[in-house]
Amino acid sequence: MAITIHQAKDAKLASIKLAALSSETKNNALKEIIKLLRAKSHEIFFANKNDIELSEKSKLGLPLIKRLKFDETKLNEVLEGIESLINLPDPVGETLAATELDKGLELYKVSCPIGVIGVIFESRPDALVQISALCLKSGNSVILKGGSEAFNTNRILTSIIAEACEKVGIPKGWIQLLETRSDVTEMLKMDKYIDLIIPRGSYEFVRYIMDNSNIAVLGHADGVCHVYIDKNAEVNMAVKVAVDSKVQYVSVCNAAETFLVHENIASNFLPVLKKNLEKFNVEIRGCVKTLKIIKVKAAIEKDWGAEYLDYIVSIKIVKNTDEAIDYINTYGSRHTDSIITSNKATAHYFMDLVDSANVFWNCSTRFSDGFRYGLGAEVGISTNKIHARGPVGLDGLLIYKWKLIGNGNIVADYSSGKSKFIHKKLNKIYSK
Amino acid sequence: MAITIHQAKDAKLASIKLAALSSETKNNALKEIIKLLRAKSHEIFFANKNDIELSEKSKLGLPLIKRLKFDETKLNEVLEGIESLINLPDPVGETLAATELDKGLELYKVSCPIGVIGVIFESRPDALVQISALCLKSGNSVILKGGSEAFNTNRILTSIIAEACEKVGIPKGWIQLLETRSDVTEMLKMDKYIDLIIPRGSYEFVRYIMDNSNIAVLGHADGVCHVYIDKNAEVNMAVKVAVDSKVQYVSVCNAAETFLVHENIASNFLPVLKKNLEKFNVEIRGCVKTLKIIKVKAAIEKDWGAEYLDYIVSIKIVKNTDEAIDYINTYGSRHTDSIITSNKATAHYFMDLVDSANVFWNCSTRFSDGFRYGLGAEVGISTNKIHARGPVGLDGLLIYKWKLIGNGNIVADYSSGKSKFIHKKLNKIYSK
Repeated sequence: MAITIHQAKDAKLASIKLAALSSETKNNALKEIIKLLRAKSHEIFFANKNDIELSEKSKLGLPLIKRLKFDETKLNEVLEGIESLINLPDPVGETLAATELDKGLELYKVSCPIGVIGVIFESRPDALVQISALCLKSGNSVILKGGSEAFNTNRILTSIIAEACEKVGIPKGWIQLLETRSDVTEMLKMDKYIDLIIPRGSYEFVRYIMDNSNIAVLGHADGVCHVYIDKNAEVNMAVKVAVDSKVQYVSVCNAAETFLVHENIASNFLPVLKKNLEKFNVEIRGCVKTLKIIKVKAAIEKDWGAEYLDYIVSIKIVKNTDEAIDYINTYGSRHTDSIITSNKATAHYFMDLVDSANVFWNCSTRFSDGFRYGLGAEVGISTNKIHARGPVGLDGLLIYKWKLIGNGNIVADYSSGKSKFIHKKLNKIYSK
Repeated sequence: MAITIHQAKDAKLASIKLAALSSETKNNALKEIIKLLRAKSHEIFFANKNDIELSEKSKLGLPLIKRLKFDETKLNEVLEGIESLINLPDPVGETLAATELDKGLELYKVSCPIGVIGVIFESRPDALVQISALCLKSGNSVILKGGSEAFNTNRILTSIIAEACEKVGIPKGWIQLLETRSDVTEMLKMDKYIDLIIPRGSYEFVRYIMDNSNIAVLGHADGVCHVYIDKNAEVNMAVKVAVDSKVQYVSVCNAAETFLVHENIASNFLPVLKKNLEKFNVEIRGCVKTLKIIKVKAAIEKDWGAEYLDYIVSIKIVKNTDEAIDYINTYGSRHTDSIITSNKATAHYFMDLVDSANVFWNCSTRFSDGFRYGLGAEVGISTNKIHARGPVGLDGLLIYKWKLIGNGNIVADYSSGKSKFIHKKLNKIYSK
């Protein structure tokens, strides 16, 4: 407990200096991290082997052990990610707005780091490297808590990153590793030192974090995504997109869980859909009306809004687009929802009224992802209604400050009427 | 209790439709509000007289009764505010980014309303009209809770606004008024329906809201602002700005509470400052070093970080700019802090390292305000580190959604290598 608060204070202190670092220093640090991770790769692999052996002994499941693995391939992937981060422009110090309040009184809205980011992730040690690099590039301190099964790997990765950064003059303490579950409980209370928490993991896990902290949380608990097939859909396109949304990768948040089908197109669409889903052994659970058209399992109440993350899909026939929208806004998780239609007005109506981070027209829900969106780097996917929504890139780790530069200006002159504001927009970049 | 949840659900339902309203409909509603408030002004003033009489009977303080007053002057001010809001461009539907992911697959990041805003304010009924108009313009539903002493005024204002909006086709239920304190307790738990809470009021009040809700809160609890007089300050300018920061309006959040003075300039600066503060009967509380230069009251530990909101100021002599920055980051409230110096490098160093929403150079802390910043309309001042910081205009009531428009595109084609992302930035505006 005592350790955690010191770590948080150290991270906060470091974050102040981190905010003022030059792009060059931050990129040098990223280069040094690449160098040192490569140089010490055998130590990392050794630590990872240790973790894996311990996990096998305690009979952890195979998928978990697979995620835990940190080998040459994973290392190369991670280093490639850092390389591309070096090539991105510095997101800090960007002029977002500039206004001349009066002659010689200039206001600048300038992007800056948020401060201290708490990241809680499960199993995958590569996430530790990736997220630390993102925080460094954006000038944020980071407090990390990984899965306990990756204990040895996380420890050596953190110490290598810290060592590389110290070499090039990054303020000490900017990266902190928590190692016990009780540390997390402490962390959730530290709204004085931690400005944002990014939890990555299961629904229960993220929900727990959201419900137990006053600190802002960026992320999503679940991904209950829909494809709505409108009466004006082209059947072949609808089948192709629906199948991709469901089966291209079933265990991820942007996979579809429910198809909503307009009653006018159901008898044409459903038999073709069924045939194509069966190729992937997808279990179909249909509403009462669906059962009258295709022979599938009957859906029960708890199928609506369920996140299967598996080769299962539920199908509901709706009367019109409004019913589809209401259904999605009621049972969805505000993540990603797609409409298939050749009617432009219906498409825009759907995209305006569905209250989700990602609203698509004639394409697969699986596209909602930072890499596919071309964001360069992904911090996570957020279903928040404030700050950042959908796939979040580096800009999710930034806020701004207002810098006002005057020459002895006082407010009394304006309230007395002696001076008047001009509020002229400036096409000027803030520079030191 | 049962009533509150119904109100929240209604507000949520209305918010979905509100998001898709045309600029014209929203502006028509604002015009209708102006018309109806004018037409029914006597009913409003009568209700307000009632509230004032009741408050006088229960011996409420004069300042509170003054804030409670809603007369011709207040009405005109409020209507002027709505007029200027009509003239502002619609903040909804703005294209924030556009990317061609592939030929015929276009991604748009488009601004949209947040959804349902909860606003809790004290006494002033004009705040109710102002905030409702801001929410309407930005397409958000609003749940309002005013001071109980303004019960009658708030009730009639809300019913007039609702009536005007219904006339021009704004979905019913978008504006809701809560009337009891227990309603607020219920409201803080409704993270399913309310997306953002804006509390306006005292430190204890805002702090209570922040500590007792999982819903995001936009605002500030306190405003502990500083002026740092560097060794390279011009004494006359420093005195002028310091005095304005302190006395121009003492009871507001952006008034200065503490002056930090570089030790090299203290003996020149402090005597002149003292003379000028005495003109306004400001009580000065100095640190030990200050007492050696000017004869003032001794500051005690709890003066550091105190928000006086009164004709009182504390003064601390510091060794250098770093000590000033550390002091501000420790005792300040991340609101507004100003440096007075003729040294450009020192000024930029200060503005980079002081972790506040507003960092100023050679001007009064009193400038941090939405009107003075030229934001057009002010939602509030935020000391948050995410979403919106400093004076917040209409854009604080907005978020964005990602709209992806394709032609049957599926992810399988990209993961198999058949198709490749091009991620080309588009100079294109999203249109229906």
